[in-house]
This record gives sequence, structure tokens and C-alpha cells, in this order.
Amino acid sequence: MTEDGQQPPDGDLATRRGPASQQDMRRQNLALVMRTVAAAHPLSRADVAGRTGLTRTAVSSLVDELIGGGLLLEGELERSGRVGRPGRALVLNGDGPAGLGLEIGVEHLSACVIDLRGEVRVELHCPAANAGRPAEQTFAELAELAALAEREAVALGLRVVGRVLAVPGSVPLDSPGSRIEHAPNLGWHQVDVTELWPGNASGAGDRAEDSGAVPGTASSTVPGTASSAVPAVENEANLGALAELWQGTGSGTFVHISAGEGIGGALVLDGRLFRGVQGFAGELGHLTVRPDGRACSCGARGCLEPYAGLAAVLRSAGITDDLDRPDDLTFTQEADPIAELARRAEAGDAAVRRALRHAGTALGTALASTVNLIDPATLVLGGAYADLAQWLLPAMRAELTELIRVRPWPEEALRASPLGRRGPVLGAALVTVRGLHTDPAGLWQTEAG
Amino acid sequence: MTEDGQQPPDGDLATRRGPASQQDMRRQNLALVMRTVAAAHPLSRADVAGRTGLTRTAVSSLVDELIGGGLLLEGELERSGRVGRPGRALVLNGDGPAGLGLEIGVEHLSACVIDLRGEVRVELHCPAANAGRPAEQTFAELAELAALAEREAVALGLRVVGRVLAVPGSVPLDSPGSRIEHAPNLGWHQVDVTELWPGNASGAGDRAEDSGAVPGTASSTVPGTASSAVPAVENEANLGALAELWQGTGSGTFVHISAGEGIGGALVLDGRLFRGVQGFAGELGHLTVRPDGRACSCGARGCLEPYAGLAAVLRSAGITDDLDRPDDLTFTQEADPIAELARRAEAGDAAVRRALRHAGTALGTALASTVNLIDPATLVLGGAYADLAQWLLPAMRAELTELIRVRPWPEEALRASPLGRRGPVLGAALVTVRGLHTDPAGLWQTEAG
Repeated sequence: MTEDGQQPPDGDLATRRGPASQQDMRRQNLALVMRTVAAAHPLSRADVAGRTGLTRTAVSSLVDELIGGGLLLEGELERSGRVGRPGRALVLNGDGPAGLGLEIGVEHLSACVIDLRGEVRVELHCPAANAGRPAEQTFAELAELAALAEREAVALGLRVVGRVLAVPGSVPLDSPGSRIEHAPNLGWHQVDVTELWPGNASGAGDRAEDSGAVPGTASSTVPGTASSAVPAVENEANLGALAELWQGTGSGTFVHISAGEGIGGALVLDGRLFRGVQGFAGELGHLTVRPDGRACSCGARGCLEPYAGLAAVLRSAGITDDLDRPDDLTFTQEADPIAELARRAEAGDAAVRRALRHAGTALGTALASTVNLIDPATLVLGGAYADLAQWLLPAMRAELTELIRVRPWPEEALRASPLGRRGPVLGAALVTVRGLHTDPAGLWQTEAG
Repeated sequence: MTEDGQQPPDGDLATRRGPASQQDMRRQNLALVMRTVAAAHPLSRADVAGRTGLTRTAVSSLVDELIGGGLLLEGELERSGRVGRPGRALVLNGDGPAGLGLEIGVEHLSACVIDLRGEVRVELHCPAANAGRPAEQTFAELAELAALAEREAVALGLRVVGRVLAVPGSVPLDSPGSRIEHAPNLGWHQVDVTELWPGNASGAGDRAEDSGAVPGTASSTVPGTASSAVPAVENEANLGALAELWQGTGSGTFVHISAGEGIGGALVLDGRLFRGVQGFAGELGHLTVRPDGRACSCGARGCLEPYAGLAAVLRSAGITDDLDRPDDLTFTQEADPIAELARRAEAGDAAVRRALRHAGTALGTALASTVNLIDPATLVLGGAYADLAQWLLPAMRAELTELIRVRPWPEEALRASPLGRRGPVLGAALVTVRGLHTDPAGLWQTEAG
């Protein structure tokens, strides 16, 4: 992961083609040592040599470079109950380089900073009416929130080296990391983040210190007054899936299904996010579940979304009419329709339970086809669906069992994400952290360049 | 690809993890030179240096090793119209190592040998009533056919270094290359190819020369009398897709749909066959197209297969009853139901055309979901479907256009394979050839080991 965000979040050194050089070998071996320590720290230098197959001399030189770059720390290894001199132990530096994750929702903005050990060190969340307003206004508020998060990170001794933004929209592959093609729930089309990020197009410098206000509290924020470099942009469902891969229950090959704005699906294949040829992979909401059925917002009929999307569930549960803002499907402090759905289902409301059951069956139909096509190890229910899992899962499992016959399908292969609605912003911050784990040399190459 | 077939056909050096060594570097650079020559031969040594970024000295040493291994040849380069001394040109050795492809169908056996340049040098095909008979009888006949193909290859100056067998059944990932889990149309369950291959379990030597008979012509063949090493086994749909990738119109990311026995689907993602976690990926025949619809052989209802499988098409076209063998869905010299379907559709038979149109619509429904999930560049219609493409494509295209709305879908992204029913056996032979292109050092490592 480079600071300009041009590398895809799951970019991997091992897939590069070209002549192998001494420099490549060193970079590859730095990555090997870093991954080894990340997987099982604390480890002594001898442990690293044993696990990697590298010589002790090679390990020492590589470790010294990683310590110099601020990625590893070496301290006393506590060996309780053992006789003899305690060894020196390598651990990931929890106070060094870190990743910033940002998120734009229909009614909120979020930011978080995660350190090299994967711990969330800063987490900010504020309401913001983003739907329908110009993207530059949203970016101005978000840049202030980002600057605030970075200042808090600095105060904790951290250094933010990468920034990724989760958006509820499609991000085309031909301009990775900078353009939002279409975000229907925000009303945005072809939005260029690089162009509209405050202080970027205007050439204004970093003047974040001028503004002490918490973003979202000022009524009209002037673009260009907030700091923080331009983030790379990525679809929220993809980032939710990556968070699940890195810190949740997902691993290897799984399909992540989330309800945010619309139905978000993401495919993680062999431990890597699969985007498809144009970045449209995982459009689970538009799998046909009832041919010639209900009209979908996409223009087709019978898609999953009009049967299992949150708008459909709220409507058939009779909740939409009761809420202040009928189109509001996101959580805010004032009115959280998901929490309301869960509260009523918990209380035994028959209409709500039926609505969730029907949604579960439709999800099951689409996911059975997905399993027959992809053959994943697991299906992970994330985003708002995770909060509703106890009422969705039984109908989903029944439908999956009914339709998946050509391979074994254990019931527990479908499960709810422990990350829930926090997934996308956590995933956004983790992109940078994982990039440092898998290609640590990318850090100083960027800083030198 | 190693001779024992334990490496998956699309195994790739670049994805191995572990410390990078000088030996790895050499192997990787041998592969780089081989791929470069394969992609654009003839090339001079200087051309190879220019294209790979390797030094001329390094290229010369690598090229010498590849020539020594019989993979490359160096001869006079003809430069018509150019002034000066003609250079020496590197080409793939079309008379060196080669791959043997084998295929078991319900009513036939096939074998072919393909050289390093990708040219088919031997192709054998014979009828054989494989459905319902013991696997060892089929293997005995197939081993004779394989031995005959290898003898013909030797006579042409070729050396078969890898053998792969295409079967109409599932091949689990936990025993790659040796076990057929389930081949419903053959009536086989859990068949171990290594165990049942003639001359293998009995420890009998290579006695192929004893038998000069053409396989399939002798009424009762005794196992253990044929030569040819045990082939690695793979699902026919997967091999059809690989053939399409390597010699057809497929490239990058595509979905291959074939009608052989049942409906075979295979996913090629970023140029690699994707098998899923248990080897069940691509079960297109069991995507739900009509919820609560027709019963499928798998036990579920509404799958694609009872709407678009060849048995369903033949039944609704009114053809099945007219043929000698109602359950015969494969092509033989005597009765080829596919050819009969095509003949009647060509003649304007309304029932046949309607049956194909309905099948096309059902295929379109399943494939629209596939496109929304995978986001492939193309859909390729192979196997028997390729022979029926002109009557299937219009209905398929209409349904795809109707249902794919969240991304652009050009009509020409769905096309028929030029390989048709030959795909699987060609793919089986090409696995070895491609293995030599992508990891040539695997050849002498195997031969030394």
C-alpha cells in the first residue's frame, strides 16, 4: 500500500511478474519476516530464522531494517518458569505507522485509526446529512474529521501513513482509488475524490490547525481548511469483507453479504478480494430470486433487493411510516430503523418477524446460487444484517439446505459478522496496516519517493 | 506440472511463499524466458533480453539450459528485406516434450497429444459403452488407447511428459488428480484412478507392446496389459474452460458453460481456473432459475438443469423417443442426438426451435445472476451448446440484457466456443504443455527425482 492509494488494497508482491532481482529478493524476504512476526509475535530472531528458513545472519539484517523503519520493536522476552537468560523478543510496533479509515454514510461520517497490531486507537463518528448535497461539502466535513483523527493519533505517538475511504457506491477499476462512479443513495455520479478533496485542487496548504471545530457541528464549512492527504476510495461492501477477512471470522474463500445502503456483496477468494473485470463483482442484490417478480431500482424485475433490502423489510414490517425520515436507512443517534426493527422483533411483533423471515428466505435463494457457483467455505452476514441475524438466519439456513444438494453444506457455514456496521470503516483503516504487513518495504520506498 | 500430476493444472510458481533463494530466482527466470519465447517466437537472444529486462549474459545461460532440456530450439532467423547478417532465432521445440490428453465420455474414449507449440499431433477417438460398467474395464481400454497415442507420438519424435484425464464427474480437491468422487452419468462413485489403472496396483510392468489391438475393438480387454503412466484426473468442464483460455476465445476472467453429461460450468478468474474450496465451483446447472419449479436430479427444485440440460431439451423437442438409445446424450458415430437437434432446428422444426429458445431463456436467467456475481469479461458457450449456439444465443442474449442493469453488458460478451465438444480432451493435453511454458524447470526436476 502506497500513500497515494494507487495500489489496490489487496495488492500482493507475490503476483508481480518480471525478472527476479536481488532487490526483489530483499523486499520479498523483508515481507516474509514481517508476516512471520505479525502472525505470532513475540518471537526471537532465532524463532524467525526457524520459521522462515532464512539464515540467522539474513534475519538479523532484515530485522534491523524493519526496526529502523519503525515497524518492529525488540525488547526483553519474558519467559516465566524458564531457567536462563531471557532472550530478546521482536514484536510489532504498536506506536509506529498506522492506517486511517474513513467512511461516508447517508447520514453519518466516521473515522478511525488502527495501529500495526490491529488495535483501534482512535474512533470518531458524527451525524451528517450527506444524501443529495454536493460531494465537496461532504468531503470538507470529512477532511476535518480526518484531520482531527490524525491529530489524536499523533498525540498517541502514531504516524498515519495511509488513508482509505469507504463509500456506499461503485468504484470503477479503471481509476482505482480516486473516482466514485455511482452512489445512488448519496445522489452522486462520477465524483472525483482527488479533485474535490479540500486543499487539493485549490493548491491550498495544510491549514488544519486553523480549525478546532468538530466536523459536522459547524453549519457551513469552507473547503480547503482541513488537513489530511487525499484518501484512496473503495466500496464499503468490499472493505467490510476485508475487515471480516483480517479481523473477523472470515478466512480463505467466503462471501460477505451486508445491508448498508442497498445490499452489498463481496467475494473473498483464496484470501483476496475479487472485484471482477470492471469492479462490479458481488452485486448480490441483483441476483434474480423471483423471475418476473417485483420491480427493482436497477430496472430489472425479481432481483433480491426488493425482497430483502432494508427498505423492503422496513416497508413490509410496517416501520417506514412510523419514522420521521422514511428514506433514512442508516443509523443516527435520533432514529435508527435497524435498532427499531430489532427492538420490535425482540418484542415479538408478528409483522416484523414475518418480514425478516421472508427476507431471510429470499437471501437464502440468492445465496444458494452463490454457493453453487463459487463453492465458498463460509457465508458471512455483515453490516445491518448482522444486527438482525437472529431473525434472518433460521429462514436463510432452511432455504440453503433445501437448495444446496450437490455438495455438503453444514448449517454453521453461514454466520453473522462480529464486526457488524463497523466493518467498512475498520476495513478502510486495515488496508494500510495489512499493506505494511505484506510489503513493509513499500513504506520507505514511498517516503523516499 | 509434474509427471505425477499432483500439482493443480494452473499451479503457479509466483504464488509460492517462503524465503526467496538463488535457486528460486533461477527457476523464476527460466520461466520468464520460456514464457517470453512462447508468447512471441521466433525471438533472438537479444530480443529476449530486451523483453525481459534480464542481462544478455543471464539470458544466454538460461536459454542454454532450456535448449539442453529440449524445450527450445535455435536456428537461422529469416529477416526478409533486412540488410546484414541474419541472427539466430529461438523457437519452441515442436518435436520435444508433449502432453497427452485423455477423455472418458458416456459412450466414447478419446486421446490426443499436443506439442510444445500447442499443435495437435495425435488425435484418437473410439466408441465405448462406459455407462454402468466397472471403472477398471473403462480404464483398461483407455490405457490401451493412451499407449497407442504415445507410440504414435514417439514415432513423430515427441516425448509425452504429462498425462491428464477429463471425466464427466466431480474431482475433489482433497485428493487432487487421483480420485473421481461422483460421475453420475457413468454410475461411478469414489473411483480411485491410481488404484484401478492397469498395471499399477498389480505392479505389472509396461507391456503395452504385447497388445497391438485398437482399444475398444477387442471384446474383453484384460487389465494390466496396457502401458502409459497413470494420468491425473480433472473434471471435463474445468478442462474445457482451460482449453478455451489457452487456445479459444477466452482470456482473463470468463465463465465457461458446457453441455456434456449435465451442465458444466467453470470459472476462469484472472487467467486461472477457480475451483472453490471443495472443488465444486461452477455448478451452474444447479443455480435456481424457477423457485419451486421442476424437480432436479440433485434433489432440489427449480435448478437450471431440468430446464436447459440436454435431456430436458431433447425431451421437450420430442427427439428422445425417436432415438435408439433414449439415455444417450453423447455423440457416437451411430446416433448423435446433438447433431439431430441441430439438423431439425436447421430444417425449421417448430418444437425443436421452441425447446432451444426456452433452454436459452433459462440459461440467460442463470447467467445473468452469474454476471452480477462474478463480473466476468465474457461468457463462453462450449461443449454441445456450441453446436447449438445459433438457436440458443438469441434467447440468452435477450434475457441477459433484461436482467443485467447494474453494469454495461455488450451483447457480444456472450459467444460460442470454437473448440466445441473437443474442448475437454484438448484442455487435458494442454495442461502439460502450459505447465512447461510456465515452469520449465519442473520438467528436469521431475526427471531427476
